[in-house]
Amino acid sequence: MFDLEESPGNIMDMTEGNSLHKSKHDTGSVGNTDDGQKYDSGGVSYDFSCIYSKDLLPAEDGEEATKHFLQELVNILMAHVSKSIKRSSKVLDFHHPHQLKEGLEGFNLELSDQPENLEQILVDCRDTLKYGVKTGHPRFFNQLSTGLDIIGLAGEWLTSTANTNMFTYEISPVFVLMEEVVLRKMHTIIGWKEEDGDGIFCPGGSMSNLYSVLLARFHLFPAVKTHGMSAIPHLALFTSAHSHYSIKKAAAVLGIGSENVVLIRCDERGKMLPSELNARINEAKIKGLVPFYVNATAGTTVYGAFDPLNEIADISEHHGLWMHVDGLLQECNQLCAEYLFQPDKHYDVSYDTGDKSIQCGRHVDIFKLWLMWKAKKKSQLAHPLQGSEGFEAQVNHCLENSEYLYYKLKRRTDFQLVFKGKVAPKIKAKMMEEGFAMISYQPLEDKVNFFRCVFSNPATQREDIDFLLDEIVRLGSEL
Amino acid sequence: MFDLEESPGNIMDMTEGNSLHKSKHDTGSVGNTDDGQKYDSGGVSYDFSCIYSKDLLPAEDGEEATKHFLQELVNILMAHVSKSIKRSSKVLDFHHPHQLKEGLEGFNLELSDQPENLEQILVDCRDTLKYGVKTGHPRFFNQLSTGLDIIGLAGEWLTSTANTNMFTYEISPVFVLMEEVVLRKMHTIIGWKEEDGDGIFCPGGSMSNLYSVLLARFHLFPAVKTHGMSAIPHLALFTSAHSHYSIKKAAAVLGIGSENVVLIRCDERGKMLPSELNARINEAKIKGLVPFYVNATAGTTVYGAFDPLNEIADISEHHGLWMHVDGLLQECNQLCAEYLFQPDKHYDVSYDTGDKSIQCGRHVDIFKLWLMWKAKKKSQLAHPLQGSEGFEAQVNHCLENSEYLYYKLKRRTDFQLVFKGKVAPKIKAKMMEEGFAMISYQPLEDKVNFFRCVFSNPATQREDIDFLLDEIVRLGSEL
Repeated sequence: MFDLEESPGNIMDMTEGNSLHKSKHDTGSVGNTDDGQKYDSGGVSYDFSCIYSKDLLPAEDGEEATKHFLQELVNILMAHVSKSIKRSSKVLDFHHPHQLKEGLEGFNLELSDQPENLEQILVDCRDTLKYGVKTGHPRFFNQLSTGLDIIGLAGEWLTSTANTNMFTYEISPVFVLMEEVVLRKMHTIIGWKEEDGDGIFCPGGSMSNLYSVLLARFHLFPAVKTHGMSAIPHLALFTSAHSHYSIKKAAAVLGIGSENVVLIRCDERGKMLPSELNARINEAKIKGLVPFYVNATAGTTVYGAFDPLNEIADISEHHGLWMHVDGLLQECNQLCAEYLFQPDKHYDVSYDTGDKSIQCGRHVDIFKLWLMWKAKKKSQLAHPLQGSEGFEAQVNHCLENSEYLYYKLKRRTDFQLVFKGKVAPKIKAKMMEEGFAMISYQPLEDKVNFFRCVFSNPATQREDIDFLLDEIVRLGSEL
Repeated sequence: MFDLEESPGNIMDMTEGNSLHKSKHDTGSVGNTDDGQKYDSGGVSYDFSCIYSKDLLPAEDGEEATKHFLQELVNILMAHVSKSIKRSSKVLDFHHPHQLKEGLEGFNLELSDQPENLEQILVDCRDTLKYGVKTGHPRFFNQLSTGLDIIGLAGEWLTSTANTNMFTYEISPVFVLMEEVVLRKMHTIIGWKEEDGDGIFCPGGSMSNLYSVLLARFHLFPAVKTHGMSAIPHLALFTSAHSHYSIKKAAAVLGIGSENVVLIRCDERGKMLPSELNARINEAKIKGLVPFYVNATAGTTVYGAFDPLNEIADISEHHGLWMHVDGLLQECNQLCAEYLFQPDKHYDVSYDTGDKSIQCGRHVDIFKLWLMWKAKKKSQLAHPLQGSEGFEAQVNHCLENSEYLYYKLKRRTDFQLVFKGKVAPKIKAKMMEEGFAMISYQPLEDKVNFFRCVFSNPATQREDIDFLLDEIVRLGSEL
C-alpha cells in the first residue's frame, strides 16, 4: 500500500525550500532554503509546470496530481508556520502598496486571461505568505490575531475541506449539533440553565453587537419588524465613551441613528460611571426619547476595562432596559466569532423564528472552537499535568506577560509620557520597515498617541517583551 | 536534508486508513482501510496517544509533533477528498440528531474538562467528516455547495494559515491589494471604468443585499445615518415575488419594515413583469410612501429566472429609484462571497468613509477567488488547449447538464406532475436514508412540491443525472 516511488518526498522539511522549479517570474528566492542551498525534496520530484487546475480532481485520473499538489502546498504552509514562530525571522517584510503592485520579484497580483500552471500557483502561494505579516510571531504585539493555534488551524483546514454551510441540519448535521453543544457549554459556564439560552456564532464582534441591538428592539417593540421604525417611538441607547464603535454603527445601520447613541462618561480607568448612566437615561426620557438598551463592556477596546456590570444591571432593571454585555471572551475573539450575550431575563429569542441569522447561509465557524475545546481544557485544576495549554492557562500566561511589561516599565527610566503624540507613529513606522516587531498605538480622549500592547499570543515570552522595550528605545533614540 | 527515518510515511495514501491507533472510543472503523485491512502508514508510525495540544508549537521543541500532527490531518483530509469524488461511496451516512448526540460508534460531541490527546483529536476529525455530507460528491444535487474546487481548497488552507484580518493594509498588505485587483477586474468585465466602482467582499448574498438597501437609503437620505428613520419619509422598496427572501429580511433589520417591501408579480417563467412594477410604484406613491429601491434578480432562487434588467432600469430611472442587481455570479456564489453591485450612476459610495463594512474585522475571503482566477481563465477562446476548466467552461458544463436533464425528462414516461406535493418529500427522505444521492425540493406559488436540481458541481456527469432519475423512479415506486 505504501509505494515509496510515488512519494513526493520530504514532507517533514519545514524550511522554505522544496522541489518547486524556478518559475518564469521567479528571480531566485523560491526553491532555495534560507541559506540558499538548492535541493529536491527527497526522492522523485514532481513537475508541476505542465499541470493545470483542470488536471486536478474531479478530473478523471486527477487523484495523483491532486495529492502531489496539496502535499506541496502543505510543505509551503508548514515552512511558513515553522518560520513564523522563530525569533530570528522578521515579523514582516514591509513594502508600500505601489511596490507590491509593481510586482515585487515577479510576484504578480494581476489577473490575466491565461491560466497559470500549478508550479506558478504554488509560487504565488509562497509569495503571498512571504509578503504578508506573520501574525503568529512571538513579537507580533499588534491587534488582533492572537497567535496561530495549531488545533485551530487543523479545524479550519477540515472545515474548508468539508465545504458546507450552516443553514440546515440536512447538509451540516455534525456542525449544527456541535454549535448546540458549545453554546450550551458556554451557557452553563456563565450560570444559565440549559433551556435559558440560545444563540448563533456570527462573523465577528461588530455583527454580534448589531444582533444585540436588533434583538432588544424587537423584544420591546415587535411591530418594528413588519412596520418599521415609523411605527415605534424614538429610541435611545447607551454605551460607555470607551466602548467599541460598533454600537454606533449598529444604530446607524438599524435606522435608529447614531446620534441616538448616548456615550456615558468613564472613570480614569475606563469604566462606565453608573451615576452618569442613570442621569443620562433620565435626561433622554425628558427629551421624549425612549431608552431601551444599555451596552456594558467586559474589556474595553483600548484599556481593557470592565464596566461595573451589577450596578448597570440594577439601573437597567429599574428603567426596564435591555442590558447587553459585549463579552470579549479570549477564546472567541481568537476565532473572530463572538458569542452573543443576552441577559437571562430576556431569554426568549423569538426573533425570526426558523432562521436565526441575518444571513441565510452561514460559514461553519463552530468546528475550530469545538476542536480546540476538545484539545485543551477549561481549567488547570482538573488535570494539573496537562494543564499548561488549557484556555485558562493561556489567558493567565497573557496576563502574566502584561504584568511583566508593567513591572519593567515602572523600573525603566528611558520611558516617559511623550508629548504631542508624534513619537509613537514615527517609532512604529521605523519598526514596520525593519520588521522585527509590531505593535499598535492610538490616542484616547486627552491622552496623546500611546503604544497599545496586545497580549494574546501564546508564543510571546518575557524575552519578547524585553526585546520590544529595547527596540522602542533604540528606534526612538534614532529619531 | 530528507531523512526517511523521520517521515511519518505514506502521505500518498488517500484511503481512510492510516497509522492512528484505535482510540478508547473507537469501535473498529477507524484505522482500517475501506476493505478492513489494517496497516501502518509506511514507515515509522507516530504515537499521538501521549501528545497533547500543549506539545505543539509554539511550545519549545513543538516543531516535530506539529509536523506529524498536521501531516496526519492532511492524510485524513486527502482520504476524504478522494472518497467524496467516488461514485461508489455514499453522499451521506444519514443519522437523526438524537442518534448523533448519543455518541454514535464512540463519536462524542460533548465537551469535557479533560483535554483529549491528539490521537483522539484526529479520530474526532475523521468522525466529523464521516458523519457529514459529502458536498463534493458527483451526486450531490442539493443546494448550495458547488463541488470541491482543489485550488479553492488550497486557497482556504493558506488563508487560515496566514491567520489575519482584512481591516488594515498594515496587517493584510497582500490580501487588501488582491481584493482591489479582483474587484477592478470584475468591474471591467461588467463594463465599468476603473474609477467607477468600489466594493468589498462580504459574508454571503444576504449580507450583500442588505448592504445594497443600506447604500440606497443613505444615498437618497443621508440624514438617516445620524438621525435615524424618524428623520426621513416612509420608504417602499420593490422586488419580484420570486426573489430571495433576504430583501424582506434586510428591510426588517434596517428598520424599514418588511411590509414595505412590495412583491411584484412574475410571468410564468419567473421574470418580474415591468408593467406591474410601474403600477405598484405609482400605487405606493399615492399611499404616501416614497419608493426608493428596486431589486432586480439575475437568476432567481428557484427558477433561475433573469428579470428584464433594461426595462426595470428604465422604470427606475423614470421614478428616480436606486436599482440593484442581485447577481448570482457562479464563481462568487461558490465562495459564499457575493459582489455587491450598484448601478454606475450611483458610483459615489460615500457611506461610512474609512471603513466600508458593517463589520470591523473581516475574514479574508479574497485569496481563494484570486487563486482560482489565476489557475483558471475567463474564457475558453483565449487558450483552447487549457480551457476545459476555466470558469466559463465550468458554467457551460453545468448548463449542458441541465439541458441534458430537461432532454431526458421530456423523453421519459415515468415522470409526471405529482399532485398534493407529498411525493417529493417522501422520496427525498428515503434518498437521504440510503445516501446515494441528494436533491432538494420545494413548492412555489400554485406549484406543488417539486424537485429542484442544482447544477453547479463540476464533478457531476451525465451518468449521475441518469442515476438520479432512476433513483427517483425506484424510490417513488416503492412508496
